[in-house]
Amino acid sequence: MSVSQEQTLQRLAEIIESRKLANGGDPDKSYVARLFSKGDDAILKKIGEEATETVMAAKDARVSGDASKLLYECADLWFHSLVMLAQYDLGPQQVLDELARREGISGIEEKAARKDA
Amino acid sequence: MSVSQEQTLQRLAEIIESRKLANGGDPDKSYVARLFSKGDDAILKKIGEEATETVMAAKDARVSGDASKLLYECADLWFHSLVMLAQYDLGPQQVLDELARREGISGIEEKAARKDA
Amino acid sequence: MSVSQEQTLQRLAEIIESRKLANGGDPDKSYVARLFSKGDDAILKKIGEEATETVMAAKDARVSGDASKLLYECADLWFHSLVMLAQYDLGPQQVLDELARREGISGIEEKAARKDA
Amino acid sequence: MSVSQEQTLQRLAEIIESRKLANGGDPDKSYVARLFSKGDDAILKKIGEEATETVMAAKDARVSGDASKLLYECADLWFHSLVMLAQYDLGPQQVLDELARREGISGIEEKAARKDA
Repeated sequence: MSVSQEQTLQRLAEIIESRKLANGGDPDKSYVARLFSKGDDAILKKIGEEATETVMAAKDARVSGDASKLLYECADLWFHSLVMLAQYDLGPQQVLDELARREGISGIEEKAARKDA
Repeated sequence: MSVSQEQTLQRLAEIIESRKLANGGDPDKSYVARLFSKGDDAILKKIGEEATETVMAAKDARVSGDASKLLYECADLWFHSLVMLAQYDLGPQQVLDELARREGISGIEEKAARKDA
Repeated sequence: MSVSQEQTLQRLAEIIESRKLANGGDPDKSYVARLFSKGDDAILKKIGEEATETVMAAKDARVSGDASKLLYECADLWFHSLVMLAQYDLGPQQVLDELARREGISGIEEKAARKDA
Repeated sequence: MSVSQEQTLQRLAEIIESRKLANGGDPDKSYVARLFSKGDDAILKKIGEEATETVMAAKDARVSGDASKLLYECADLWFHSLVMLAQYDLGPQQVLDELARREGISGIEEKAARKDA
């Protein structure tokens, strides 16, 4: 994974931040600014929608043998996760920090223990 | 975002890959190996579950003023996205590539145009 | 529950059936005909959307003390379930039959046993 | 639809009501009492889970030609809707009343107008 690719989440987060109305985002010109103008529920609804579309694309991929739509929908899910994080004044680094905390065998098995409890 | 943090998704993907049964993952010891042993639907169901838990945590965050559960659930959603990608022999780099393709003003507005069509 | 209310699901199912394109439904005039014209994924996506909206309305109801939006969203979820059933040539009676099969203490505990297995 | 079938939702709602802890429901013996003992989020999470399982079953039905799992999952979704309604001191009659209000061509088209707005 090249450095430029690795920074994709951070760069996207910055673009999304610039679309906030307080930062000059224009709901007439920008899809993200439009989501921000609609508020929490419109953004959270997208999380549910994109999760459902991801699941449908995964089911389709087993039939078609083509996973491109699954990648596309997973990207949509992560993209709208970034919009949600921004709406709550959070960013991808904090999610990656939480994931890093769990990283490694011990972390994942700790999670397993918790989930199965 | 430090380089080590940026590589978190890739490192997690490698750990997840090592949990596949074909790679020696043991369902009795590993939560991820257990998900792999259950197959597509068990993994996809987690996408729906974690999306719902993320939405609930976001609603709670507005009431409590504490976003830590939202970060935790978003990390869970991304983590299970990585397990799903691995199940379909895909990885985070491909999702980041798709996101990078959309990056920048033009990309996001292209998406907006599509979504509103 | 009056007889007229009890038959609501069946009457709605008949109206929905009449909106199928093969039965003369017009996508330009009817929301349901428009869903049918879009096909499986558009209808299934609504199940995910309405489920998410139901969950959000339930969270809001605890804060506001007003459950009217929750009722509204649950009605939306059931309504789109009826559209989905029609899309697969099924109807509410078959779902009620399945629920009746589980009815009573034994049925619900059988379910519990299965779910916890 | 026979009267006995039509009353299924109401009878199930009464059984579910009896499983509330305040009504003597025992979490050690009853799946529904166990859900009530866990509270709002456990019940709402089931709405998201069952919606996802319904969508997956619908996708499978197109491949297998067998809709029995779809009926089963839709019944699960409606069943957990009843548990959710009970948790908020609501019942199926109120959802049916809301659906009846929308019934008829005018009601459905009113909804369409709203949704497309």
